[in-house]
Amino acid sequence: MAQGGQRLSADGSPRRTLLIIGGAEDKLGRSVVLKRFVRLAGGRQSRIVIIPTASSFVDEVVETYSRVFTRLRAGADIRVVHAASRAAAHDPELVGHLEDATAVFMSGGSQLKLSQFLVGTTVGDAIVAAYRRGVVIAGTSAGASVMSRFMISLGDEGLTPRQRSSQLTAGLGLLEDVIVDQHFDQRGRYGRLMSLVANSPNLLGIGIDENTAVEIRDDRVMTIVGTGGVFVIDARNAVTDAPDARRGAPLLVSGAVVHSLPTGATFDLRSVTLTRFVERHPDIEVAVASAKDRAAPTLAPARRAET
Amino acid sequence: MAQGGQRLSADGSPRRTLLIIGGAEDKLGRSVVLKRFVRLAGGRQSRIVIIPTASSFVDEVVETYSRVFTRLRAGADIRVVHAASRAAAHDPELVGHLEDATAVFMSGGSQLKLSQFLVGTTVGDAIVAAYRRGVVIAGTSAGASVMSRFMISLGDEGLTPRQRSSQLTAGLGLLEDVIVDQHFDQRGRYGRLMSLVANSPNLLGIGIDENTAVEIRDDRVMTIVGTGGVFVIDARNAVTDAPDARRGAPLLVSGAVVHSLPTGATFDLRSVTLTRFVERHPDIEVAVASAKDRAAPTLAPARRAET
Repeated sequence: MAQGGQRLSADGSPRRTLLIIGGAEDKLGRSVVLKRFVRLAGGRQSRIVIIPTASSFVDEVVETYSRVFTRLRAGADIRVVHAASRAAAHDPELVGHLEDATAVFMSGGSQLKLSQFLVGTTVGDAIVAAYRRGVVIAGTSAGASVMSRFMISLGDEGLTPRQRSSQLTAGLGLLEDVIVDQHFDQRGRYGRLMSLVANSPNLLGIGIDENTAVEIRDDRVMTIVGTGGVFVIDARNAVTDAPDARRGAPLLVSGAVVHSLPTGATFDLRSVTLTRFVERHPDIEVAVASAKDRAAPTLAPARRAET
Repeated sequence: MAQGGQRLSADGSPRRTLLIIGGAEDKLGRSVVLKRFVRLAGGRQSRIVIIPTASSFVDEVVETYSRVFTRLRAGADIRVVHAASRAAAHDPELVGHLEDATAVFMSGGSQLKLSQFLVGTTVGDAIVAAYRRGVVIAGTSAGASVMSRFMISLGDEGLTPRQRSSQLTAGLGLLEDVIVDQHFDQRGRYGRLMSLVANSPNLLGIGIDENTAVEIRDDRVMTIVGTGGVFVIDARNAVTDAPDARRGAPLLVSGAVVHSLPTGATFDLRSVTLTRFVERHPDIEVAVASAKDRAAPTLAPARRAET
């Protein structure tokens, strides 16, 4: 069981863990995503900090998550760090709670509140420092988006990528080379994410469905948790007319590589490849293969799916 | 101006032309898609056959399209071929109208009516024969889907590909190796198309937005017309768990190559690559490049978009 700062990465530094949740995670039923969070946080030994700052309903958010974490057998030490303004987020007293936390949970709400009240503040810097020393950082919805260096703060729905269909804002920078979108299927956000990676092809687009999360270890190894899917859009080698397209025009993005990943998939963010897949459903739990074995029947290239 | 049977393909056979429309094409304004159809049909010299069979409102459909085609300066000879049942579609008399047509237009409505009343009937076979001798075949919505050998007849909305989220039915077979979906952006059909090509990776998925069309010459050269975008999903080399996934589960589809194509794009269906792009909007009409010039500034790989 991971506890803040105990596990080490390959390079000897504390193992870094993010749990990025696509919003609307189940809080009443099996709660697979939040159960995973509590487990990562250390279970009974966890000391969780809830950051409800994105929300307009701070008290409800704190009450709801406190109750769920307790039901899922988290430790009794659950604290709240809430910065109600940018000035408040520079208060060193707020930071104390983060110092011996094993995990941080950032709620949903408004991305722009997070960029205003967290990014570049004393509290925000303390979250980054906590992450680096091994504290698990989780966030859902807006709390998911704020984790990367570049955050989608506003945007249009729809499949077709269009120029200037969304707005980027500075995030916390826990991840450098990806951009995260959430409520992905439910709010039809494929177009805006594809448009963003066409304009900034060094960024890998990660779109996360509701009640679904990606767990990222050491900025690199990504696994999927939950009932929905996760899209990865890699436009590094795509051809695009982004420099020329006018506002609102459908964008040319030819040759993007797209990965649709359900639970059971492990994806390497550095090589941008699927490295492992385990089929997870009630009757089959047999398929295990490495990237080298892609031709194996259980993880076959699609063209062989019918053979 | 193309007229039925006059232009020849490279191999000396009549040039084959399809205009596959994503539905809801503009009929009152600039009508760029239907204008293109009338032009392909031969303009003033056209002899157009309307097939309203998919629709529940046969008379309205015939009246609407007759009026639009006339406004767009089609020839006065506009006829109707309507098979109200499968038995009726075996009536040789209906076929007479197709014999000297320059173009055929199939309306929207129910895909299943088209598979019932056209595919494999005397009228259906006559459409295929007309196509082979150079008659332009156009269709919108259901009339678009029925053109390929495999047709999506029913399916769910959503981004995330899921197993068994749609139903395939036999189409006319004017195109062999693609599968067409329409109303693509507007009805959020990315998931169902990706699921289908994951299950049948030899088929190329083509998703067409409303008021947008693909024009396909000789089963190979595809250009885009209209205000929306066209998605091509190529899962030939993707890794998938389609053979194992249970009903409704999000599918693993890793490494699909995706192309988002606006007007101005030319795409080779045989090599599955973008071959040419001309930026089309009021203030810029300069970018022309072949696939070999992809590094040229006007058609730069996305990673260079920011340099």
